[in-house]
Amino acid sequence: MRGKFITLEGGEGAGKTTQIKLLGEYLTQKGIETVLTKEPGGTPIGQELRSILCTGDKDKIDAVAEALLYYADRRIHVCQKILPALNRGAWVISDRFADSTMAYQCYGYKDRISKDTLNELYKITVGDLKPDLTIILDIDPKIGLARSLERNASSQIQETRHEGRALEFHQNLRNGFLEISKTDSRYAVIDANCPVEELHKKIVRLIESRISDA
Amino acid sequence: MRGKFITLEGGEGAGKTTQIKLLGEYLTQKGIETVLTKEPGGTPIGQELRSILCTGDKDKIDAVAEALLYYADRRIHVCQKILPALNRGAWVISDRFADSTMAYQCYGYKDRISKDTLNELYKITVGDLKPDLTIILDIDPKIGLARSLERNASSQIQETRHEGRALEFHQNLRNGFLEISKTDSRYAVIDANCPVEELHKKIVRLIESRISDA
Repeated sequence: MRGKFITLEGGEGAGKTTQIKLLGEYLTQKGIETVLTKEPGGTPIGQELRSILCTGDKDKIDAVAEALLYYADRRIHVCQKILPALNRGAWVISDRFADSTMAYQCYGYKDRISKDTLNELYKITVGDLKPDLTIILDIDPKIGLARSLERNASSQIQETRHEGRALEFHQNLRNGFLEISKTDSRYAVIDANCPVEELHKKIVRLIESRISDA
Repeated sequence: MRGKFITLEGGEGAGKTTQIKLLGEYLTQKGIETVLTKEPGGTPIGQELRSILCTGDKDKIDAVAEALLYYADRRIHVCQKILPALNRGAWVISDRFADSTMAYQCYGYKDRISKDTLNELYKITVGDLKPDLTIILDIDPKIGLARSLERNASSQIQETRHEGRALEFHQNLRNGFLEISKTDSRYAVIDANCPVEELHKKIVRLIESRISDA
């Protein structure tokens, strides 16, 4: 049986990376083969694209170039990692997927690229595949950005290209994710401003209620 | 006055790089500010994308991922280099542009990506801009590949990802360029199987006949 495809979405510092690790441990303990991955950079070539996308000056490339690079990364990710895993029955949990491109490049930048264009890129790149469940971790950008910059300060690679944008961008982004969440029943929004363990429990409860064989 | 945008196209080893240098010298001597550039890799970020696209195993990414990366490179190239140069009145001569993506990704691979998809990517990325003149250097792929592999043998970086494809791919590619040349009056096909100086003279004559202020 084909595996389940779950994506975690949200702004900077919402806690996606930590929660994905905890969720992976939980599913593995239940005997489910679980592939934890991320965008951009879920594959070796994707890592090279991630370095272009997430480091350096925020204005070094425009929203259209960004969208094309995110979708190139996504195409390689889907073909080489996500689909092979789902087809052998593994569950794939991805830290970000196409909803991030819609939230950042369309809502964050206030329509410097249109929804239609992004939907067209989705069709070209991903085709009919879509996540079974998308969990949006919602947090006030002021709290999220502070967390994210703190994490980056202790990291060797400075992935702060998006953190360098104005607070307004991050507020647009949050509103974008909330708007997106209303467009399809596969979305669930969770308040991420709570302790790590509590958030993990909320996510597990959500998955158990939404996916029958969890 | 806006400058002229001229692209050189053709398969591997058709002589584009040499001819662009000679053409640049010719136009500069006539007092025309000339920007010589190439795809992929006409910008610093484009160079990183060129390394992904032109080195390594021929099957490391599929035709759709390639098209997205070529168009990402193109978007950055158009925004950061081609349009600013044209707008200040310079002539831009590019070693490859969008016709190469159509020839390689659509014709070369025999429709693993559709014309409609590539035209959609063009619209998203390049908008209304198109070259004033596109010169297709036509050569038998057996002769072109031999030239190209000889050139690569003396180069430090082995950009032989496309040369590694079967001869059939390169024959499809040549036929693709010839098909494309019939679709718009901006194309001109030149037989490139002749000495360097003779080919340069053909190109100069073509430009003088096609572009009024050359």
